[in-house]
Amino acid sequence: MATTPYERRTRDAQAALAEADADALVCFPSRNLSYLSGFAEEPGERHLFLLVPAAGDPTFLVPALYESQVRAATWVEDVRTWADDDDPVAATAAAVESLGLPENPRVLVDDTMWATFTQDLRAVLPDATFGLASEVVAPLRIRKDDAELDALRRAADAADEAMAAVRALGADAVGLTESELAARVESFLADAGGQGVSFETVVGSGPNGAMPHYRHGDRTIEPGDPVVLDFGTRVDGYPSDQTRTVVFDGDPSETVREVHEVVRAAQEAAVDAVEPGVTAASVDRAAREVIADAGYGDAFVHRTGHGVGLDVHEEPYIVAGNDREIEPGMVFSVEPGVYLDGEFGVRIEDLVVVTADGCERLNDSDRGWEC
Amino acid sequence: MATTPYERRTRDAQAALAEADADALVCFPSRNLSYLSGFAEEPGERHLFLLVPAAGDPTFLVPALYESQVRAATWVEDVRTWADDDDPVAATAAAVESLGLPENPRVLVDDTMWATFTQDLRAVLPDATFGLASEVVAPLRIRKDDAELDALRRAADAADEAMAAVRALGADAVGLTESELAARVESFLADAGGQGVSFETVVGSGPNGAMPHYRHGDRTIEPGDPVVLDFGTRVDGYPSDQTRTVVFDGDPSETVREVHEVVRAAQEAAVDAVEPGVTAASVDRAAREVIADAGYGDAFVHRTGHGVGLDVHEEPYIVAGNDREIEPGMVFSVEPGVYLDGEFGVRIEDLVVVTADGCERLNDSDRGWEC
Repeated sequence: MATTPYERRTRDAQAALAEADADALVCFPSRNLSYLSGFAEEPGERHLFLLVPAAGDPTFLVPALYESQVRAATWVEDVRTWADDDDPVAATAAAVESLGLPENPRVLVDDTMWATFTQDLRAVLPDATFGLASEVVAPLRIRKDDAELDALRRAADAADEAMAAVRALGADAVGLTESELAARVESFLADAGGQGVSFETVVGSGPNGAMPHYRHGDRTIEPGDPVVLDFGTRVDGYPSDQTRTVVFDGDPSETVREVHEVVRAAQEAAVDAVEPGVTAASVDRAAREVIADAGYGDAFVHRTGHGVGLDVHEEPYIVAGNDREIEPGMVFSVEPGVYLDGEFGVRIEDLVVVTADGCERLNDSDRGWEC
Repeated sequence: MATTPYERRTRDAQAALAEADADALVCFPSRNLSYLSGFAEEPGERHLFLLVPAAGDPTFLVPALYESQVRAATWVEDVRTWADDDDPVAATAAAVESLGLPENPRVLVDDTMWATFTQDLRAVLPDATFGLASEVVAPLRIRKDDAELDALRRAADAADEAMAAVRALGADAVGLTESELAARVESFLADAGGQGVSFETVVGSGPNGAMPHYRHGDRTIEPGDPVVLDFGTRVDGYPSDQTRTVVFDGDPSETVREVHEVVRAAQEAAVDAVEPGVTAASVDRAAREVIADAGYGDAFVHRTGHGVGLDVHEEPYIVAGNDREIEPGMVFSVEPGVYLDGEFGVRIEDLVVVTADGCERLNDSDRGWEC
């Protein structure tokens, strides 16, 4: 039987575990778990673990009601189950025991693993020291293979198509509440072939746009309002993430025009700065300098970007102080913004994939404010 | 200024901390955090904590880009920030320091707190012992107040309305794929005033219905197929969760009819068993006995229900072995099911609220299989 990509990734992770002097990796329902096993699930209160020793074969421990679903999805052969009236901690102890770990093992757990499960693992392995799975899995996940890039491209296309449809609303968007417009966005994403949203849709109009992580609310969109539109969808499990700041109708103030131009230039400068061998920090700096030179340095309150893969936020983080070198195959967002408290915000964001000598934008929808 | 419900809940949690000999509670973006502070956010990779000492006032530590949003949402006055180019672990250490904890403190953390944050807290507090926030917060959250019940009722009404609309499709649902029908369900939920889904919509047709946690896929719905429909939405932050198993057109097999009748009787028996003072296990047993007596005991592979509040799965769990007494104000699901591998599944689920002398169903949509 041909090795699946999931088995290949798991074997690579095992080599990395051995290299890192770690004895086992324990995943719960997480992106790491789906990356390694092929089985995707949201975290829940039931004990569900993939246990990967540095050498040998991995073991799944799953609630009985998941058994057929897990077996259908994964290449892992050892699938153990526990029933709702069993003690899940005892089942965990037995599964951990079967790994044959050395004394005082070093165990890496999913970065997102819930405290309820890490506390149980500490009880079961009182002499272990714990680290985070990202130590060995993030370096594998950070460079995307062709199948991953293909899914990311298709997700970006769906976001582009939805953004064009939103923009085409023009004056029809005026009078809608932010939440009504968010519902339209989500319907456009579905029409474009997207599967759900990759994060809660942002429609930040007027002063609400000045809160970088605002979602949407009851405020009605007025003529002349700059509106921050930040959204994405998933295709084959991989997300898109794109931002535009548009004025649906009427004329924005001079300040809005000026800030929009500054942010657009900053985004361009950061994209131009991306090439293999430069640091993540230098990409952040390229955007920040343009905004600082225009006098808005204090209003750019977040990092320039984040990696995107199975997680919509993952390494590499494009932030001051991150000396990590950019490599071909990395995919991340470039999304500078300026936020004037109580007035408005402007953010422009594309995903880029790093190529042999620069980068390619995955998004190509219009970046201007005019509809 | 009048005390907000959030402040009142926090003061109750502080009394419970003292009672439990715990020195502090640390929340990250979680339902507990929104229950206590009024600020709701999804977990993310940035350090965002609500630190509640057993005595004194709580402290928020948030990424700078969240500051205005958090201040607008919460009664907590001490809101500290860290910027993307600061060290979040140092900021965490400073915030923890300000609590003035005793030596060897006992600290409760959110049950869902990510390992990346619990490992940082352990580094910052090397002499602490750790427990779970549910120890003090779950007993507060398990009995719903009037505002919570009102939101739960409205969310249940929206699910009822959507279920009636789905059922009304009748023969029009035949020929749709499960995923297409799931999209229709979600649009009906939005039309009924729901805000998003409270969990991924389940449309399990024919053999797919035999996997209790199956979501939806490419299978086309055929005449005579029993289809498990399990979905919910949120109203004012509170979820609904309802299941019906229907046949959209054509005649189901004799086995389907028989199993449907057994599950319906089991659900009725469990609802009838709910009253203050009985144990959660006894409610589970009431459903299980009906199914076992009909010869399908091995095919009822999950617990009978789970509490529903801010979390769609929370205490009390209606499961064998849970001797917890049922109290007025508790809200939970009653959802027995029978799963015949490779053939079909049947599940019927309502939410109930415990009253002074029994319970009241929050759902009242038709429970039969006929459309």
